[in-house]
Amino acid sequence: MSLIVQKYGGTSLGDIEKIMTVASRVKSSKDAGNDVVVVVSAMAGETNKLVDYCTSISEIPDPREYDVVVSTGEQVTIGLLAMALKTMGADAVSLTGSQVAIHTDSAHEKARIKKIESETIMDHLKAGRIVVVAGFQGINERGEITTLGRGGSDTSAVALAAALEADVCEIYTDVEGIFTADPNVVVRARKIDRISYDEMLEIASLGAKVLQIRSVEFAKNYGVPIHVRSTFTENEGTWVTKEDSEMEKVIVSGVSYDKNEAKVSILHVPDKPGIAAKIFGPIAEANINVDMIIQNISIDGFTDLTFTVTKADLPRAIEIITGVSGEIKAQEILTDDRVSKVSVVGTGMRSHSGVASTMFSALAKEGINIMMISTSEIKVSCIIESKYTELAVRVLHEAFHLGQETV
Amino acid sequence: MSLIVQKYGGTSLGDIEKIMTVASRVKSSKDAGNDVVVVVSAMAGETNKLVDYCTSISEIPDPREYDVVVSTGEQVTIGLLAMALKTMGADAVSLTGSQVAIHTDSAHEKARIKKIESETIMDHLKAGRIVVVAGFQGINERGEITTLGRGGSDTSAVALAAALEADVCEIYTDVEGIFTADPNVVVRARKIDRISYDEMLEIASLGAKVLQIRSVEFAKNYGVPIHVRSTFTENEGTWVTKEDSEMEKVIVSGVSYDKNEAKVSILHVPDKPGIAAKIFGPIAEANINVDMIIQNISIDGFTDLTFTVTKADLPRAIEIITGVSGEIKAQEILTDDRVSKVSVVGTGMRSHSGVASTMFSALAKEGINIMMISTSEIKVSCIIESKYTELAVRVLHEAFHLGQETV
Repeated sequence: MSLIVQKYGGTSLGDIEKIMTVASRVKSSKDAGNDVVVVVSAMAGETNKLVDYCTSISEIPDPREYDVVVSTGEQVTIGLLAMALKTMGADAVSLTGSQVAIHTDSAHEKARIKKIESETIMDHLKAGRIVVVAGFQGINERGEITTLGRGGSDTSAVALAAALEADVCEIYTDVEGIFTADPNVVVRARKIDRISYDEMLEIASLGAKVLQIRSVEFAKNYGVPIHVRSTFTENEGTWVTKEDSEMEKVIVSGVSYDKNEAKVSILHVPDKPGIAAKIFGPIAEANINVDMIIQNISIDGFTDLTFTVTKADLPRAIEIITGVSGEIKAQEILTDDRVSKVSVVGTGMRSHSGVASTMFSALAKEGINIMMISTSEIKVSCIIESKYTELAVRVLHEAFHLGQETV
Repeated sequence: MSLIVQKYGGTSLGDIEKIMTVASRVKSSKDAGNDVVVVVSAMAGETNKLVDYCTSISEIPDPREYDVVVSTGEQVTIGLLAMALKTMGADAVSLTGSQVAIHTDSAHEKARIKKIESETIMDHLKAGRIVVVAGFQGINERGEITTLGRGGSDTSAVALAAALEADVCEIYTDVEGIFTADPNVVVRARKIDRISYDEMLEIASLGAKVLQIRSVEFAKNYGVPIHVRSTFTENEGTWVTKEDSEMEKVIVSGVSYDKNEAKVSILHVPDKPGIAAKIFGPIAEANINVDMIIQNISIDGFTDLTFTVTKADLPRAIEIITGVSGEIKAQEILTDDRVSKVSVVGTGMRSHSGVASTMFSALAKEGINIMMISTSEIKVSCIIESKYTELAVRVLHEAFHLGQETV
């Protein structure tokens, strides 16, 4: 008998019929002799509706009250799923973040889990009940409702699996697992059977939306095995686990892309201490996430700085840079939002040189120009023109022999 | 400086614009120097949507989980209203039933308030905050969410006013107060300035939907003055208070009607002990509320029994009575759902005879037949044919001189 934490996202719970489907899936795990804790998101569309209410009252809604409002989405789902399980003859009980209790810090809208009390859940499991927990939410030390930020239910699930010392955390989604590339772009993309936490972290931060980055960090820190799989089939999905010897044989695990990038170049700024801080200080204060930063070689005491942000953040980034441009004596500011990032990821890179050069020559062969390059131990990313995104993903997938043996 | 509890219903909070209107109304009470606690219902339509979710999973949804789901409606509203108040520069904080805490028994879907802790609210008031509390909900001794039943926010507000020893409980609604009759039926209906708890109890139980009956009982028991008034005007509404000498001068305060009645007659049953119990025992077990019961004079050891239930409960009532008809040896069962109840209410009746006879002759003059009569110390009700309802209300309003001096 295992203790399994299962997490179902909003698209798996989009309407009553889907909730019933999820309920029978949960029940069969229980009937197979497992203890089951289910973590759920809000029904698809619900969170957006609640956010719309808030933002129509104020552009920047009060964070404490925002959390009071948006956390109701998950509360609706836990009640409905527990109800559905009971109609099927399974004993089930729902718990809010407060009832569990999931303790977080007080950073409303993006709180971090500090501690999860396992006693209430364990008591219900011992009594033979399926426990349905609201994802995405917790309480701070004053008993106020907090939320973990978009995708936070993944983190709730992994954190619960860690706290309960579960055997596995199953993340149910509308795809079969993690693929070597987006199957919509690369026909021969192959489902990955096992992937390491570090690779998954890179893939998640490179734009894939299957798992929230923080949940992977959490899983890595606590050694929680994650199984990403489809709500709608019985197939094995992708296991995200700690690195093992088998994984190292694979040099590159996958190719990913992110079309949500925009590029800002600040030309001819004096190359002296403090300039970068003057630029990126106010950017960080405005909560704008900077992805890549490139600084060219300094010529005659001047340099060019280029960085990328999300397309949505570009207008505010331009505003901020324009504001400091006098102070930093920038000659010109150029922006481009028709760029994408393509990346190859794999733990095997560590012990194999030549990944970057294979990538560059594969792109060059198709006449795709590389605008920016960034590397980590297990990843190489390039910024290219947006219109070449799909082509680039396909040639890289081919260049690293990631395709299926048979289509 | 007063401590005011204000309650706003769903129609006053139907959309974001209305929430902003309520917020400015609340803020002006605060700006006038009062401590203000606001109790809110779910936005109009929300509770129905949540109930529909539940009933599409199961005809009789699990009560514990039903409460988890439907209580989210009020949680959304408290967050939005507190948020709206903050955008107007008022300091405000929202509290769920659990956060207050409002302790109830464990009768899910129709829980009763046992105790309200005033400390958290008083602390926020002392800090100068407007406190926005979710109506309709509480927690039981296991920390489970409970709800008080439809219209329960009225009871939440009155109970809070009692616990906080508030100076007044203001019930904001979409009408100007309590009227001598439904203004849609009687053009000359007059707003009542003051009415006693007992009269209000009769009026509420006679079909008027302005106040939940239990909230009036609560107000009576704890001596909480209720002020029923419009969200959309500054006019004084109707004060519901303990009886005073002025009230006694008025013999009849108002005329009410209820079209939601149905009549069941059981003919020729043996008139012996235990028969009534055999009929009304199973009816009560099925949670069917019986309004009037009439038993005719027994002839040759047999009698006829007639009672009324709501139209919605009629099919189940028939089913139950048919089930026991053999046992009680009933000759025939007749039903009629084309009936209404018209009533006159007033504390002054106690010291004035003749109210019933004035009522009967006013109805007779219009040729309206009376099918059943029921009286209490301060009320006379008649069951009549539905089609005469509005006519009956108008002639009674006239007969007791309830109209406005000038139209």
